[in-house]
Amino acid sequence: MSVVNRQILLAARPVGFPKETDFKLVEAPVPALQDGQFLVRALYLSVDPYMRGRMSAAKSYAAPVEIDEVMTGMAAGRVAESRHPNFSKGDVVFGQFCWQDYAVTDGKGVRKIDTHLAPTSAWLGVLGGPGLTAYFGLLDICAPKQGETVVVSGAAGAVGTIVGQIAKIKGCRVVGIAGRDDKVRYITQELGFDAAFNYKTVDDYRAKLKELCPQGIDIYFDNVGGKITDAVIPLINLKARIAICGQISQYNLEKPEMGPRLLSYLIVARAKMEGFLVSDYAPRFMEGLTQLGQWLKEGKLKYREEIVEGLENAPRAFLDMMRGANTGKQLVKVAAGEA
Amino acid sequence: MSVVNRQILLAARPVGFPKETDFKLVEAPVPALQDGQFLVRALYLSVDPYMRGRMSAAKSYAAPVEIDEVMTGMAAGRVAESRHPNFSKGDVVFGQFCWQDYAVTDGKGVRKIDTHLAPTSAWLGVLGGPGLTAYFGLLDICAPKQGETVVVSGAAGAVGTIVGQIAKIKGCRVVGIAGRDDKVRYITQELGFDAAFNYKTVDDYRAKLKELCPQGIDIYFDNVGGKITDAVIPLINLKARIAICGQISQYNLEKPEMGPRLLSYLIVARAKMEGFLVSDYAPRFMEGLTQLGQWLKEGKLKYREEIVEGLENAPRAFLDMMRGANTGKQLVKVAAGEA
Repeated sequence: MSVVNRQILLAARPVGFPKETDFKLVEAPVPALQDGQFLVRALYLSVDPYMRGRMSAAKSYAAPVEIDEVMTGMAAGRVAESRHPNFSKGDVVFGQFCWQDYAVTDGKGVRKIDTHLAPTSAWLGVLGGPGLTAYFGLLDICAPKQGETVVVSGAAGAVGTIVGQIAKIKGCRVVGIAGRDDKVRYITQELGFDAAFNYKTVDDYRAKLKELCPQGIDIYFDNVGGKITDAVIPLINLKARIAICGQISQYNLEKPEMGPRLLSYLIVARAKMEGFLVSDYAPRFMEGLTQLGQWLKEGKLKYREEIVEGLENAPRAFLDMMRGANTGKQLVKVAAGEA
Repeated sequence: MSVVNRQILLAARPVGFPKETDFKLVEAPVPALQDGQFLVRALYLSVDPYMRGRMSAAKSYAAPVEIDEVMTGMAAGRVAESRHPNFSKGDVVFGQFCWQDYAVTDGKGVRKIDTHLAPTSAWLGVLGGPGLTAYFGLLDICAPKQGETVVVSGAAGAVGTIVGQIAKIKGCRVVGIAGRDDKVRYITQELGFDAAFNYKTVDDYRAKLKELCPQGIDIYFDNVGGKITDAVIPLINLKARIAICGQISQYNLEKPEMGPRLLSYLIVARAKMEGFLVSDYAPRFMEGLTQLGQWLKEGKLKYREEIVEGLENAPRAFLDMMRGANTGKQLVKVAAGEA
């Protein structure tokens, strides 16, 4: 095949906050298909905080991307050519297609997308990893009950926006922590959070949380960690549930940060803290997607996407997302004029 | 009544590590009994780490002891006089009788002790709070499975010795962390722990744990916190369970100590960490006592007591226990020649 496949490789392991030069764009031929394979033309790439871990050689729950390997990541695309019995040219699909124009796959881990329920891009956000992360992390680990107070860090991000809205559906008081005034306005005025604050302009997080959570904190959904979490934990109520989803404040530190020891608070409150990965819930994804899709149709879930055009801009989109530039889900549109 | 009741009061809120002068011995008359009350002559007092929290005015799960109030605590004693329908003179009972020779009680929270199953003193240890703490903390929160590796901090203490033995009964590999070589020998040679080390003579806890836990750590039962816990957490396996029972390394610090942030490890391992108090399991105490009693009879559980004579020595016994002087359960014998 003479089609050129642009790919973005990991050029260097980032030290501290990643830079554009940690990535490089190359061109490669698209390999010929074998029987049982199909070719996907990427439409949208997802950029997500977990990718920072994949750029590091440190031991984690998944193998790192190697230097000069194509950056990993989920994408939505259209089948361009197929020698696979279950996927046909034109199907819109979702899978780990990485940061490139074209991916050849045998279909493992690839799902077809129902673009009647929601547009292609939504299957990388509210109906993709972030939506499922919010759904299982909040409902399975935190089991919210009506009237409880839920605090969400990273509240204006792809996961946090959905967590807060599901908590509202469950009848909770929801308080969000975000990093810009317009994000605070968005989650309170458009998404229905009961309160929120901008951690970049508030000095005393704990005092602010006390003010916004007069009944204490029953549930904490943590995307951020660090000083925000330090302020939340001392305010937890008896039998509080804490879902550790992300710790983005820590991912770009060159040396581990020290913080106050928090475990005594877990004893006093008899509280539970649990780390999780959405991939562990794969056997229940249909349950999650069905419910999220239902809430979407009923207008109970809203979502926002920020879309950068062009594969070549994926590194910048990733870096901007890590800096918190986006509200809602950050995507990269790879194929202009499609879907 | 003309009997003198010696009492130990909290004389001052300790700053840092408590001192004997934070307590004072006074004499008071024994109040006359009302209908529905009975008088208990204390036989044994229990001294336990949680009491340090009661000496502090900081918010916790129970109200603090006030200055010049009798120090709180569980004790076993004999009914000396009764105007209560369910308790008779001579009954051996167990309750929150505080640090004094005599207690007047209406029977709330008081249980009769079966001295045929185990001697009176054992009902403050293996069949009392420490035994039940070990039982519910390990079995309910950590759910040990055969072949898993269990690490216990404070392993030679009243709770840790029982945790390790129950974990052995459940077929686990058990590694204890204690603070003296003879404690390490006791738990490995007499209690059947698979391995143990003295954290006061080992420099690199993490390297030592790696050596003693070649399959990683599935369960961590934490009585200590601080640098020991810092070393354990990075070694946890997928789906590890961590019971936060105590944080004795932190109780006597004048300023909170800083430590490395640990929450990212919970994500990587999808691990659960939970604080608990044995009192929350009160509805299931009979279950726990029945099983612990059964294991005792079968010779599967051993216990050791260290007994200081004389109510006046309770403060010293408490301080020595906080310093880790005891192996197993530290008790104070109040009435000489009894039980």
